[in-house]
Amino acid sequence: MRIITISREFGSGGRELGKRLADTLGFSYYDKEIISAIAKESSFDEHYVEETLLRGLTPNYTLTFGHTFAFGPDPIMQNELKILKLQQEIIKELAKQGDCVMVGRTSGSILEKDFHPLKIFVYADSAAKLARCRSRADEGENLTDRELEKKIRQIDEGRARHQRLFTDKKWGARENYHLCINTTGLEIKNMIPPIKAYALAWFSQHSSEV
Amino acid sequence: MRIITISREFGSGGRELGKRLADTLGFSYYDKEIISAIAKESSFDEHYVEETLLRGLTPNYTLTFGHTFAFGPDPIMQNELKILKLQQEIIKELAKQGDCVMVGRTSGSILEKDFHPLKIFVYADSAAKLARCRSRADEGENLTDRELEKKIRQIDEGRARHQRLFTDKKWGARENYHLCINTTGLEIKNMIPPIKAYALAWFSQHSSEV
Repeated sequence: MRIITISREFGSGGRELGKRLADTLGFSYYDKEIISAIAKESSFDEHYVEETLLRGLTPNYTLTFGHTFAFGPDPIMQNELKILKLQQEIIKELAKQGDCVMVGRTSGSILEKDFHPLKIFVYADSAAKLARCRSRADEGENLTDRELEKKIRQIDEGRARHQRLFTDKKWGARENYHLCINTTGLEIKNMIPPIKAYALAWFSQHSSEV
Repeated sequence: MRIITISREFGSGGRELGKRLADTLGFSYYDKEIISAIAKESSFDEHYVEETLLRGLTPNYTLTFGHTFAFGPDPIMQNELKILKLQQEIIKELAKQGDCVMVGRTSGSILEKDFHPLKIFVYADSAAKLARCRSRADEGENLTDRELEKKIRQIDEGRARHQRLFTDKKWGARENYHLCINTTGLEIKNMIPPIKAYALAWFSQHSSEV
């Protein structure tokens, strides 16, 4: 099984990179599919699942509502835990089905031990991320650059926080990835052939270990 | 001019990667050559030049010898400053001569503004770096794993310190590089074709900017 997991800064083009890489390799591609599967299994609304995965388990609830575990189970917390458990199960289940590229959802950390994925981190400088967000009609249309930068930072902070629920390996720290790609100034589609070649060379050397 | 600069953790194989990449691209390769050139220009001993570049400008001298700038120029400090100035000049001079790969010597930071190099960082996990050092007969022969790890860490700290003399961009922080390659578990020679392809694709997109 050859699994590629992609973590990415918001606006860096990691999703495009992952999709194109999956297409050129003939691998399955999972991103929002993971959320849909969790929603289906849990019978929660997709939007609620996505929000929860973005936000992570926040202690805010207990602070806001005066509930703690000591006062018995908090239903909101229980829903969150259920979603996180499903996230792990579904990601592992998908990984078992064959070669694939997974974008986000902490899949690298979740699969690391059992599936030895090639873990890629995609990032870009702030100006490049702003420009990429602006080029997508639905993102930050009414925001100033400063507001959009703040939004980008908050989304990435959410991803880092979410990862901390599963592992003590820090989100975005290069030592936790096999390859870190800075997309600043690059047309992603032009970089796919060498990234594909890198992935295949990497798997050919790691397959004996798995 | 296509310049590739390689920064690397000690024992990660960054030097081998740089040399092989230069060979396959038909680019010039500079590493120890930079030290030799500084030694020649300054008429300092090569070993002294190398030590100085590894160590950086340490305030230890002034502490140890009770000299400070307030008491007039410190001859040791002056020698160091001379070497650092030559380092910058020689690196820029070599870059002007044509396509090349430069390993170490803070070349990425020194060339960044005028030459827009492709900046690569090479790293590996601790076990892989230990194994690589052990496989080189002259490195850490009589050291325990713990001592060798400490030596590796000290050398990398020296590199980070040296870089701080030239730039506030942190050594090893992924945002200061275009590509970060984790060599853990890899035969470097097998990774050269995709890295070459990546470099050529990168330059083809950045050439219009320079």
